[in-house]
Amino acid sequence: MTDDLATVGERAALARIIPRLARAEALLGPGDDAALLAAPDGLVLLSTDAMVQGPDFRRAWSTPFELGWKAAATNLIDVAAMGGRPTGLLVALAAPGETPVEDLEGIADGLAAACAELAPGVGVVGGDLTRSPVLALSVTVTGSLDGREPVLRSGARPGDVVAYSGRLGLAAAGLRLLFATGEEDADAIAALRRRHGPLLAEQLAPRPPVADGVRAAEGGATAMLDVSDGLLLDATRIAEASDVLLDLDRTAIEAEGDAVITAAGADGVDGAAEPPGRNEAFSLVLGGGEDHGLLACFPGEPPAGFRRLGRVREGGPGVAIDGAPVDAAGWDSFSAS
Amino acid sequence: MTDDLATVGERAALARIIPRLARAEALLGPGDDAALLAAPDGLVLLSTDAMVQGPDFRRAWSTPFELGWKAAATNLIDVAAMGGRPTGLLVALAAPGETPVEDLEGIADGLAAACAELAPGVGVVGGDLTRSPVLALSVTVTGSLDGREPVLRSGARPGDVVAYSGRLGLAAAGLRLLFATGEEDADAIAALRRRHGPLLAEQLAPRPPVADGVRAAEGGATAMLDVSDGLLLDATRIAEASDVLLDLDRTAIEAEGDAVITAAGADGVDGAAEPPGRNEAFSLVLGGGEDHGLLACFPGEPPAGFRRLGRVREGGPGVAIDGAPVDAAGWDSFSAS
Repeated sequence: MTDDLATVGERAALARIIPRLARAEALLGPGDDAALLAAPDGLVLLSTDAMVQGPDFRRAWSTPFELGWKAAATNLIDVAAMGGRPTGLLVALAAPGETPVEDLEGIADGLAAACAELAPGVGVVGGDLTRSPVLALSVTVTGSLDGREPVLRSGARPGDVVAYSGRLGLAAAGLRLLFATGEEDADAIAALRRRHGPLLAEQLAPRPPVADGVRAAEGGATAMLDVSDGLLLDATRIAEASDVLLDLDRTAIEAEGDAVITAAGADGVDGAAEPPGRNEAFSLVLGGGEDHGLLACFPGEPPAGFRRLGRVREGGPGVAIDGAPVDAAGWDSFSAS
Repeated sequence: MTDDLATVGERAALARIIPRLARAEALLGPGDDAALLAAPDGLVLLSTDAMVQGPDFRRAWSTPFELGWKAAATNLIDVAAMGGRPTGLLVALAAPGETPVEDLEGIADGLAAACAELAPGVGVVGGDLTRSPVLALSVTVTGSLDGREPVLRSGARPGDVVAYSGRLGLAAAGLRLLFATGEEDADAIAALRRRHGPLLAEQLAPRPPVADGVRAAEGGATAMLDVSDGLLLDATRIAEASDVLLDLDRTAIEAEGDAVITAAGADGVDGAAEPPGRNEAFSLVLGGGEDHGLLACFPGEPPAGFRRLGRVREGGPGVAIDGAPVDAAGWDSFSAS
């Protein structure tokens, strides 16, 4: 049960991992030099994202299952953000030789479970297992537009409704709780999980609204992206690509902030024994990051699942709140501390 | 000129890297949540491979350009090994904050140059840049069969000719030279490059026969793979998938060994001041690994570029030399020392 990768060897480890991975849509899966996937309309969407131990996750905070889940979830939503339907994942897993094979099995289970829940029918169609000083997961996701046009960032037009599907600020609030607790005290982390399970799950095993991507495209979305670097920064990206002003309603943002306060409960989000203030919640909503919901613009009423956040106006590019321009201060994984 | 990633930040670094990457065939490249690629026959080939600093490369041995080149080359050949034409690369680059942005530019230049030389028209269509304690490149390659059937490992039939396109044993010989020189003495490494440039290039910046994949498929190949773990082990994979015996000709293998001896020259491959012996060369050819040429089986005469290595016979699964069964002893990146 405590076999590690170095003892078991790459091939034996793969033999234990691969059967745990669903691969329903692959015409050819693991076992040849490349996988073969259907691209029914002659086009394929592709995106890749890596998660590295240290900068992107801590072993003390995330279970292997959660790592696999998050790697799948955060990639699946990238295809959804183009209006696409995910069709497959490729996973390059890099792990230290002393990694228990059980941990790799847990990662595989998390990958499979996230696919089953967020994009039924999708599975891991290919991969690579390599040795590394630190654990890292690089996932590539494929998707199909099924004959639709892709939804880019550049199509927002004055008059469009700005809307969002997913949670805002909660993943960042969960991360603050984890940072406040630290990595050393396993009992404190366990207590945090008991008290703040749902909030931590937003950070450790998020459930982005993958199916809403196709729904948005079918609902006429003119521009869309998934919010990974904070609402303000990602709204700015649509504004700049479309050369418009995204004017957010303060009341809508405050309502999102109230949801953060409710989710945080009486214990707050930074170890303080009081709930976050409204300013703090407001800032988590606007700049928190890792939300992985879909921000989209619609000429008419947004489809079910999307909440109105504001309106597209002339006078860009930029983002405003109730007409007053705001500076985007988002997350940069290198320059931010 | 000595800006590092942490100082410059992820976005500014990307702004310097992305223009260096060709992306001719992408309908949509970097800038949206996912790339969009053509899959003209409604199918897409996909493969992924990671290279991690330490187990897979040493900064003291490889230039950034060579790292980018090798990451592209070793992935492009995986699509070729299915009989496919590469159409795009996605690159997840993980790097320490102190990495000079110049090094990232060098990696980008190497990726672009390998594509231009080995698969003209192909470029990097998407990617990810993340912070990491060690440098790592995870590349996903896409390809098209253009209406052809994929060439699997399982189609070899008794009577087929076993043939190979590419170099054998030289990459492993280059690696031995590097290990014998070590990482500490930059002058010694520079001297090694002057004396053994072509041999080192087989290890550090290989030129696999990417175009020969389509040629093999059009020439009726019944089974094919790229030899990454050594000829014997990879021949065994075809033998097992096809349930046949791959019977190699000793004279053909010896001729490959002679090519290693010639390439090694008078200095040998392990720091000894004498050329490798025939037994040593023979073993490099059979078990060296990282050759990245194409091993294929043909019912008739192999196409140009392929050399005959033997014949497929009944009585498998297994590999033989002149009819005598041999055990595959290949490379396992975890259990091998």
